[in-house]
Amino acid sequence: MTIGKGRSIFVPMTGAPFVRDLEEKREWGSLRHLNNFHKLAHMLPALHSSAHVICEPMDIPVNHRHLWITYSSIVHSDKTFMGMSTSEDRAEDVMAMVKIVFGEEFVETHPVVTANINGNSPLVWDETMLGAMRVFTRHNQPVLCSPFVLGGANTPASTAPAIAQLNAEALSALAYTQIVRLGAPAIYGHFLSTVSMKSGAPMAGTPEISLMNFAIGQLARYYRVPWRTSSLLGGSKVFDAQSGYESATTLAATIMAGANYIWHSAGWDEAAMVCSTAKFVVDAEQCAMAYRMAEGIRWDDFDEAVAAVRDVGPGGHYLGHPHTQRNFQRAFFMPDLFDNSSIEQWQAEGARGTTERALDYAKKLLASYEAPSLDPAIDETLRAFVERRERELPGDVS
Amino acid sequence: MTIGKGRSIFVPMTGAPFVRDLEEKREWGSLRHLNNFHKLAHMLPALHSSAHVICEPMDIPVNHRHLWITYSSIVHSDKTFMGMSTSEDRAEDVMAMVKIVFGEEFVETHPVVTANINGNSPLVWDETMLGAMRVFTRHNQPVLCSPFVLGGANTPASTAPAIAQLNAEALSALAYTQIVRLGAPAIYGHFLSTVSMKSGAPMAGTPEISLMNFAIGQLARYYRVPWRTSSLLGGSKVFDAQSGYESATTLAATIMAGANYIWHSAGWDEAAMVCSTAKFVVDAEQCAMAYRMAEGIRWDDFDEAVAAVRDVGPGGHYLGHPHTQRNFQRAFFMPDLFDNSSIEQWQAEGARGTTERALDYAKKLLASYEAPSLDPAIDETLRAFVERRERELPGDVS
Repeated sequence: MTIGKGRSIFVPMTGAPFVRDLEEKREWGSLRHLNNFHKLAHMLPALHSSAHVICEPMDIPVNHRHLWITYSSIVHSDKTFMGMSTSEDRAEDVMAMVKIVFGEEFVETHPVVTANINGNSPLVWDETMLGAMRVFTRHNQPVLCSPFVLGGANTPASTAPAIAQLNAEALSALAYTQIVRLGAPAIYGHFLSTVSMKSGAPMAGTPEISLMNFAIGQLARYYRVPWRTSSLLGGSKVFDAQSGYESATTLAATIMAGANYIWHSAGWDEAAMVCSTAKFVVDAEQCAMAYRMAEGIRWDDFDEAVAAVRDVGPGGHYLGHPHTQRNFQRAFFMPDLFDNSSIEQWQAEGARGTTERALDYAKKLLASYEAPSLDPAIDETLRAFVERRERELPGDVS
Repeated sequence: MTIGKGRSIFVPMTGAPFVRDLEEKREWGSLRHLNNFHKLAHMLPALHSSAHVICEPMDIPVNHRHLWITYSSIVHSDKTFMGMSTSEDRAEDVMAMVKIVFGEEFVETHPVVTANINGNSPLVWDETMLGAMRVFTRHNQPVLCSPFVLGGANTPASTAPAIAQLNAEALSALAYTQIVRLGAPAIYGHFLSTVSMKSGAPMAGTPEISLMNFAIGQLARYYRVPWRTSSLLGGSKVFDAQSGYESATTLAATIMAGANYIWHSAGWDEAAMVCSTAKFVVDAEQCAMAYRMAEGIRWDDFDEAVAAVRDVGPGGHYLGHPHTQRNFQRAFFMPDLFDNSSIEQWQAEGARGTTERALDYAKKLLASYEAPSLDPAIDETLRAFVERRERELPGDVS
């Protein structure tokens, strides 16, 4: 998988303390929920990564979480995933685990995980994050250098100056990676939001977030560095119209801005307090649609189709035409999760809203889930590593 | 108001047989509902027009509707509006009414209404529509020449060939306007949807609709003709996440494609079967946000704000800084209808979803509505005209 060079990948959200589960109940995140999200990420074709801590496994002691999160990412999906970067030691554990999976030599020459390092805007990179960064960078693993922007609170209350500040922050971290290991892969990152000047709350889908994305995409291309942004962010407390407008607005801006690593692209609602199962699958379909859009217009059947226009003639229709018969399946994206039937048909089918349809879809996916193959010896070694580290690390620290 | 020349205007939806009313009840459209929508269009600053038949007044005989629709557009708002174009005679009635308001001479030299003419794709303009077109064009009123595209049903099942067909259709109608009156204003139009090849239903917010908008925007600019498209279209039976994703996806595509006349921009759900009151006000706020985005990045405070970055320094915050104090109100868009509070606060305030908040907002707007001033003599003449035509036209034709 290539990150950068005109390509875009979608990565699910991470970090939610709560989930909306398969019954739409709002609960603390748990390892069981996390396993399910890793399975869904594995099965949804538009997601290119299973990320890491999609929701926090609150039922695991804090000091052991990175082990179980990494183990869950590895065994439930063979897509790429993310390395936990909450401290230097935990980063070392992640590296030990990926070496078990891929072999020590392979890891040194091939990026196998991405790790995110948040900046404490304004103008601070703290030592905890930098410690983790040095581990991944020393091992030649790509690091996302991400100023964490709450526009108006930790940046000036103005779009262009906020961009200037976070650009300085991102560049300083990118430069630091090259001091640690010259030539190590690194990604120009950021998390973008603007803050409501009424309440101090972060907002999603605002015009200024789109404008920041447009400008930062150009800067990253100017510096010739792959670019990470966030997308499909919602602030609603329930998965409703607000979530949809906010998520789609950000998705359109990030895909049209040419973002390479589009994080938080599935599940994010309630300003990251919740990973919503319903939203997770709907967002993933939206990513598939954005991906299709970004592929642009096909021209390979143009002459044949224009001949069909002559064939059908004024006032005719195309439904039975041979060109249509050959092309209808790939011609126009048909979302599985959006209902376009008449109200009568919709009522006859139970008058189900988007959330219900999405949860049914998620349940069906999980029922048909098959784990990707993993050498049982590797799995055993991984488990032995996790169990040893559990014994070594105090489990009651939170 | 300029249409074209790099400007965008937003016009509400039209043509809904049903409404979702102020209590979210689904009802047949009526004149009372239509009056309310005209009032809302008047009050919502991002809407540049009050359109015409936002919902069908089903309580008025078909042959009298154009009279009451036009009267309602005129008296409830001083924004521009649309001329009913369902037949030549009705177009003449509209022209008679606008002459009462603006004076005969003024109308001949100033466009005062826009009129839409739908094509019957593929490749047909029917005489009913062309009859209405000739009335508006002869009176120098701008006509939207709009092939009505159900991609895959009345066009080839392929994006580029569909564009080629509708381009030929739009150009033929534009050329015809110039035969009727050389130099008369005209607008390159279309209605775009793609059809689900499973059900035959029109879809909204699909990737191919965005691609068609991007290409057609370029064609219209190539021909140097103002360009009309549609936006904020939803297919959901209730105002939920689906409506939001679909609407915002189309809005982003049309505003970034540089559309000039962005129709159906408020209220459209259930594939145009319904004008939703809640969606109407939310869509209008989305238009305001898109408008702000399209204005681009401000640079007038850049030096001052970068000085603030030096001032605040590493690890500080900007909330109390003089630059923030001066800029916070205009810095970042703060939507009225989207909730960004914590779940605890949201629950304490009644756990209201987007629909409820939007309906409260619409009720508040309507409660504070003030009709724009209209010379009582003009109003009287208008009413006399409507009553005379009611007597002349058989009222029981439907």
